[in-house]
Amino acid sequence: MRQSQLFHKTLKETPSDADSVNASYLVRADFVEKHMAGAYAFLPLGFRVVKKIEKIVQEEMDAIGGQQLLMNVMQPKELWEKTGRWESMDEVLYKSGDKKNQIAFAATHEEQVTSIVKNHIKSYKDLPLALYQIQTKFRNEPRAKSGLLRGREFLMKDMYSFHTTDKDFEEFYDKSKIAYLKVFKRLGLEAKIVEASGGAFTEKHSHEFQVLTEVGEDTIFFCDSPAGECDFAVNKEISDVEDGSKCPKCDGKIKKANGIEVGNIFPLETKYSHALEAKYVDKDGKEKEMIMGCYGIGISRSLATIVEVLYNQTENKMVWPESVAPFKVHILSLNQNEKADELYKILKDKTEVLYDDRETSAGTKFAEADLIGCPIRIIVSEKSLTAGGAEVVDNIKNSTKIIKLENIAQELNAK
Amino acid sequence: MRQSQLFHKTLKETPSDADSVNASYLVRADFVEKHMAGAYAFLPLGFRVVKKIEKIVQEEMDAIGGQQLLMNVMQPKELWEKTGRWESMDEVLYKSGDKKNQIAFAATHEEQVTSIVKNHIKSYKDLPLALYQIQTKFRNEPRAKSGLLRGREFLMKDMYSFHTTDKDFEEFYDKSKIAYLKVFKRLGLEAKIVEASGGAFTEKHSHEFQVLTEVGEDTIFFCDSPAGECDFAVNKEISDVEDGSKCPKCDGKIKKANGIEVGNIFPLETKYSHALEAKYVDKDGKEKEMIMGCYGIGISRSLATIVEVLYNQTENKMVWPESVAPFKVHILSLNQNEKADELYKILKDKTEVLYDDRETSAGTKFAEADLIGCPIRIIVSEKSLTAGGAEVVDNIKNSTKIIKLENIAQELNAK
Repeated sequence: MRQSQLFHKTLKETPSDADSVNASYLVRADFVEKHMAGAYAFLPLGFRVVKKIEKIVQEEMDAIGGQQLLMNVMQPKELWEKTGRWESMDEVLYKSGDKKNQIAFAATHEEQVTSIVKNHIKSYKDLPLALYQIQTKFRNEPRAKSGLLRGREFLMKDMYSFHTTDKDFEEFYDKSKIAYLKVFKRLGLEAKIVEASGGAFTEKHSHEFQVLTEVGEDTIFFCDSPAGECDFAVNKEISDVEDGSKCPKCDGKIKKANGIEVGNIFPLETKYSHALEAKYVDKDGKEKEMIMGCYGIGISRSLATIVEVLYNQTENKMVWPESVAPFKVHILSLNQNEKADELYKILKDKTEVLYDDRETSAGTKFAEADLIGCPIRIIVSEKSLTAGGAEVVDNIKNSTKIIKLENIAQELNAK
Repeated sequence: MRQSQLFHKTLKETPSDADSVNASYLVRADFVEKHMAGAYAFLPLGFRVVKKIEKIVQEEMDAIGGQQLLMNVMQPKELWEKTGRWESMDEVLYKSGDKKNQIAFAATHEEQVTSIVKNHIKSYKDLPLALYQIQTKFRNEPRAKSGLLRGREFLMKDMYSFHTTDKDFEEFYDKSKIAYLKVFKRLGLEAKIVEASGGAFTEKHSHEFQVLTEVGEDTIFFCDSPAGECDFAVNKEISDVEDGSKCPKCDGKIKKANGIEVGNIFPLETKYSHALEAKYVDKDGKEKEMIMGCYGIGISRSLATIVEVLYNQTENKMVWPESVAPFKVHILSLNQNEKADELYKILKDKTEVLYDDRETSAGTKFAEADLIGCPIRIIVSEKSLTAGGAEVVDNIKNSTKIIKLENIAQELNAK
């Protein structure tokens, strides 16, 4: 896309009301616009990143047999009364409607998905089953904070699984762990599986996917053994270990760190199937309650986490992982639009290219390109042309080469 | 996909509370589930159709220079007070929040998009501009009815354009008409452009895209001249013509019909840019208000309209247009899973295939396939194998051929 046509305008300064690195960067680089406390609009560049994150999540959920659907934002009071959550979640639910038709705007979907599955599944033969959706969710946070890390309106992938036996549930639960690690790896995030509380109704633990970084809200204790040797990691809320103490699982030492929870998976046992009477007929002809699990990934939160980890505040420089970058290649023309046009025409059907064809200074172009953060930058300047082509900068590998214009397409494919 | 794995269960009977052909079909064929009055969940088959409609709309909006973003569902009271719509739309807005932070759930986005553009655009050089999104919208209809045709929670594509001159606006408005006709044609719908009221604030007319069908809520008068000769068509609300009267534009006769409004486009003039002070600096150095247009397409409504037009109630048979069908090909194995498996393995990477591999009667398979409505059906039975292959039924052309299994992939590509 030609940058002269793109709806985009970076800010010269960090926005004064930004309460976090991600909000500060995303607003300044014009990926999002703050709409109100806890709610951000995704502008064209940010929207492109969102779509790429969603696609990666979809591919990995499909790969473990998840089937995508789209449930509702509006939730009727009667349904939520059955699980007691109309009252127990009152503080965070946005409610509306008249007395006869009270609704809440969904913060989560256990009620609806269990109700849908109840209407569909009769026999053990119809199980197991995993359903998921990607949807905007709402949560009336008393204090929205940390930019897109904790908003009132946010994008989530939520999956729900249904099983006849604990063993079958556990197999799927383990499969989901591997799928989640694949998702975060593809997003360029290193996520640690951390044991956390399973809530009031189960003795089992849930598992969080935590990206360790200073700004994280959660406190994590984990074994500091060389990678892969020991996987001990717990959320402070359930642990009695301390920083520096001996690992309960090996000879390693416990380390303390902050983490951002980008995903979590949760054994639900029969909490919702019991409340909503979601039963199936088993091999022995008896009615039984389905065993459930739920599996969340914060889409907008993952986007914000990538920024927290990768944005270099000192240099005002971002480099998005190739998998989610708004564009893979950023061509900067420094008063050489004729040659740069040629290159753009060659590349635009082969890869995703943003082409800075604007009449503005080299300084502005470089500063904005640093903010936008495409993995590959190609500079077409008098200097580069004299040297025999364009300057191709790989921002991930931190390498620069002069390459003939006609060879660049091939060079990029070779990567 | 193997049908034995698909989350799907058709109903034997039309649901008793269905108030329309689309709801009756979509619930019975298990494309959607009714969640509450005016709100339907899209189940896996329905979700696939939604995604295909969205993609077609996106492609045509991109083709006329639309840039996609994603605005917010939550809308702050202060912003909507500036245009007076916090009060004037009170009846249909779902409102929530506490006294300090009152919000509405968006029924439309003129306020937010104008505010975003105001923050971005300074100069005439930054215009024209067209931004669009696809999003779930909310409208507190006193009586939700007609299934997905008039819901309380529905999917919309809404685009907004910004211009410096009336001429520039009109050029884009005309371009959008052509793009809209392309969208509806690709969806398999014949839409008529119909003049309608432009609302209280303009003498200009808006334009609706109406699919003529008995169940439509709107009354349309149009010239009955052979196709293409005369394009006179008006919504009853602005017309003084009558059924049978002479066309005001030609010698043709006026005909009356009902229509479903699947899209509409609207000149907004400076209504919102005035209220929200969205100005730019023109060539002459003067501040001027932007001239705006808005452009809507009902995504879920288009899906329902396709059903209203194409579902054959007498035979309980649907045939989706290839462009939006949940799957292009439906393989039915009549106790011949070995051979059908072979065929499925050949076809599944080449096209979208649903494969009925279930152990159930031929009668059930045919009845459900009629409901699901894939354009191509391939029957693998003892009879077809004896005749030399599989029975390939083109449900759109209404033709049937016996084709050798190894030749089917080629035959389908040749289409």
